[in-house]
Amino acid sequence: MKQKITLKHIARELEVSISTVSKALKNSEEISRDTKEKIQAFAKLYNYKPNNIAISLKNKRTKNIGVIIPDIVHHFFTTVFRGIEKFANTKGYNVIVCVSDESFDKEVINMEILANGSVDGFIMSLSSETQLKNDYNHLKELIEQGIPLVLFDRVTDAVECDKVLINDKDGAYRAVKKLLENGRKKIALVATEDYLSVSKNRSDGYFQALKEQNIKIDKNLILRLPSMNSVEGNEMEEFFKNEKIDAVLCVNEIYAIHGMRIAQRLGYKIPEDIEFIGFTDGILSKFSNPTLTSVAQHGEKMGEIAAEMLIEKIEIENDVETYRTEVLEPTIMERESTIN
Amino acid sequence: MKQKITLKHIARELEVSISTVSKALKNSEEISRDTKEKIQAFAKLYNYKPNNIAISLKNKRTKNIGVIIPDIVHHFFTTVFRGIEKFANTKGYNVIVCVSDESFDKEVINMEILANGSVDGFIMSLSSETQLKNDYNHLKELIEQGIPLVLFDRVTDAVECDKVLINDKDGAYRAVKKLLENGRKKIALVATEDYLSVSKNRSDGYFQALKEQNIKIDKNLILRLPSMNSVEGNEMEEFFKNEKIDAVLCVNEIYAIHGMRIAQRLGYKIPEDIEFIGFTDGILSKFSNPTLTSVAQHGEKMGEIAAEMLIEKIEIENDVETYRTEVLEPTIMERESTIN
Repeated sequence: MKQKITLKHIARELEVSISTVSKALKNSEEISRDTKEKIQAFAKLYNYKPNNIAISLKNKRTKNIGVIIPDIVHHFFTTVFRGIEKFANTKGYNVIVCVSDESFDKEVINMEILANGSVDGFIMSLSSETQLKNDYNHLKELIEQGIPLVLFDRVTDAVECDKVLINDKDGAYRAVKKLLENGRKKIALVATEDYLSVSKNRSDGYFQALKEQNIKIDKNLILRLPSMNSVEGNEMEEFFKNEKIDAVLCVNEIYAIHGMRIAQRLGYKIPEDIEFIGFTDGILSKFSNPTLTSVAQHGEKMGEIAAEMLIEKIEIENDVETYRTEVLEPTIMERESTIN
Repeated sequence: MKQKITLKHIARELEVSISTVSKALKNSEEISRDTKEKIQAFAKLYNYKPNNIAISLKNKRTKNIGVIIPDIVHHFFTTVFRGIEKFANTKGYNVIVCVSDESFDKEVINMEILANGSVDGFIMSLSSETQLKNDYNHLKELIEQGIPLVLFDRVTDAVECDKVLINDKDGAYRAVKKLLENGRKKIALVATEDYLSVSKNRSDGYFQALKEQNIKIDKNLILRLPSMNSVEGNEMEEFFKNEKIDAVLCVNEIYAIHGMRIAQRLGYKIPEDIEFIGFTDGILSKFSNPTLTSVAQHGEKMGEIAAEMLIEKIEIENDVETYRTEVLEPTIMERESTIN
């Protein structure tokens, strides 16, 4: 039996990256003519079809939804998943998940696996590497083939499709405003690198709130950590030791909880000496000591809306493509880490 | 195009449960003759094939592994998943996850979806409802069809297959022994219902440690909560108020963190007045205040071993079926919630 050939096979065979294969098949200017010809010839020889799908899909509903998330350990993504499941199940759909592990290649491979007739459509949040590479050919291909796609949380303007996201900028803006109203002067920001769309938007909200009060941005009060799971190092401890800080906005709850522990060790009283606000509003925020004031991202609601959007697209076969973007307003959940 | 018929279709059409259909097709004594005849006739009419698979599978490797976990929000399962991914990826396999949400029906449906030619084998942990029903026909069918299966953590003696689990009893035993050695007299147990295999084993370890010291089991010191996600009620608060307790073993970290918060509110000093040990050793244990002494279940290691076992079975086509059970020894991670 002849195996179906995928992007991964072509990449492995010709010793180039998946991204290169994808671009070459799209005739991208970025790839040299020589490489393009080689890849295109190989694809033709083995009768490569993007995602191996399309025709079969239109005729046969699987009643399955494919979900691709960047990380399974992150509480936010699992709550979104729960919302997707909840809505999908009431409509008789099952949900299959793949995890990209923040890797572009894995995102593409996962998509190929599931698009291979296993699901009727996709709900996904972009991997950090995909956002860094800024390469969305695999998504564009999907859409060209008429497979419905809904992006959530980590989205991109480069792809036209349904989207659901939280107003991250406004969430951060309101959090910082609250800290300013409490009389805080030295408000720090603990964030990840800016290529992550949500981290950038949260930083922008922080800047806006300070600028409105004519407070100059102090670069020394901004700490950028490489990845969400790397709170093991002592960058944060050094940061807290060197800077006189009276409030902190963290772009996720792990940074915030970790920061509170360090502040407590250094003798700070929370919230009297230093206030903390985090994002995510997951299980850690509720059970930490003190409990953490958090910008709630309404993950479950986001999942429900994403599933509703997707199933609508799957079931209403409308050839006029209209896409919508739903923006949820975050809520600040006040707890013990701030003066309320 | 004629749709493939599944257990779910038959159940819905004949208005019986999936479990009934499964048992009827196995000619089980538990189902009335009338119902069995009806179901068998229907299945024959629509040419039902268990899992719609078997033949195609043997010829075509998908290089995909199907994982079915009871809950995606539970930190332990996500760490096992990470271990599975880690090992599978090094061997060129991709991982697809479905979540049973602790439901028997969803477990069966998930299995049918993935067994439909999408994966080469399964790694799974039983849903609580499956353990309660004690119905494993869907697993037995899978194995009869020659599809490799590895069970982890929540396993059953009723199915012969590869298994990997933690020595839960020994973990609990050693935790309670540690509390006894610290001079504790009134050691409480906060557990779930006993039909969950792991909760039962942990309770057994608790009993054994007390019996060895000739301490009579005091039923008033044992609190059983209905499900892991239901710490919202005030059963635990009542429990702590009514009983004089100087140490607590909790079968998961959520119970433990929740218990510590309540104890602190009631004026107890941890660990001086009351010590806490939990299971799971997830993110909550590391970031709580005080940090939680925990029985580490080595989820990632468990996942790696499960993936290794499964891939071995997939790749070595050996008709002599031998199964092995790997039992991991838990480690007690000492933190601030106990006197060390």
